[in-house]
Amino acid sequence: MPAPGGAVIEAHSEESDVDRSPCCSLYHRAIEMVGKRWTGAILMVMMEGPVRFSEIRQLVPDLSDRLLSERLKELEGENIVARRQDCDSPSCVRYELTEKGRALEPAVRALKRWAHDYR
Amino acid sequence: MPAPGGAVIEAHSEESDVDRSPCCSLYHRAIEMVGKRWTGAILMVMMEGPVRFSEIRQLVPDLSDRLLSERLKELEGENIVARRQDCDSPSCVRYELTEKGRALEPAVRALKRWAHDYR
Repeated sequence: MPAPGGAVIEAHSEESDVDRSPCCSLYHRAIEMVGKRWTGAILMVMMEGPVRFSEIRQLVPDLSDRLLSERLKELEGENIVARRQDCDSPSCVRYELTEKGRALEPAVRALKRWAHDYR
Repeated sequence: MPAPGGAVIEAHSEESDVDRSPCCSLYHRAIEMVGKRWTGAILMVMMEGPVRFSEIRQLVPDLSDRLLSERLKELEGENIVARRQDCDSPSCVRYELTEKGRALEPAVRALKRWAHDYR
């Protein structure tokens, strides 16, 4: 690889840390998926239980219908969110976290705590 | 606000969840900051201690010099990363997490665990 300033060679010659394992494709993909514009906010409001499309729109200011639809489809595609419909009316459609989605809660809560501690 | 399918009115009339608190500007900003392209991966490799620029490049495949510089500047601007130089040589420049940056570790670890559990 290119070595600006010869730093890589230097790194190998003294107290190098580069025997650490390379980062981390599963984690890398995950953090950019949950950090995608609006996705984190959508996940947060779903942590408290199933919600209607319109409720998410109310709880996440400035999120457009179009982007919310797009994000919900992506999250359904990742098996993080499931769509359920408890009666025939469109108003009975709710979105809820799957088991995989609920398992994101520790990470989301930790980040929320950090954001408040270091505001 | 617009109410596609009248769902908002419906939501207020029965078993509504919309008295939940609106999401969450501090958290929202935080998750999109750490989830920005490459930022999460850079943070992960810095969790193990100070690293040289060239070491980060080695540990995070496909990350360009330009983008790494940009992300490091952003993280310095957020007081998450600090630049230190232990001697006059450019190869002595290292980047390390600040206290605020180290405090991200629980969130990062939780997300890494999730990514491995649900790969």
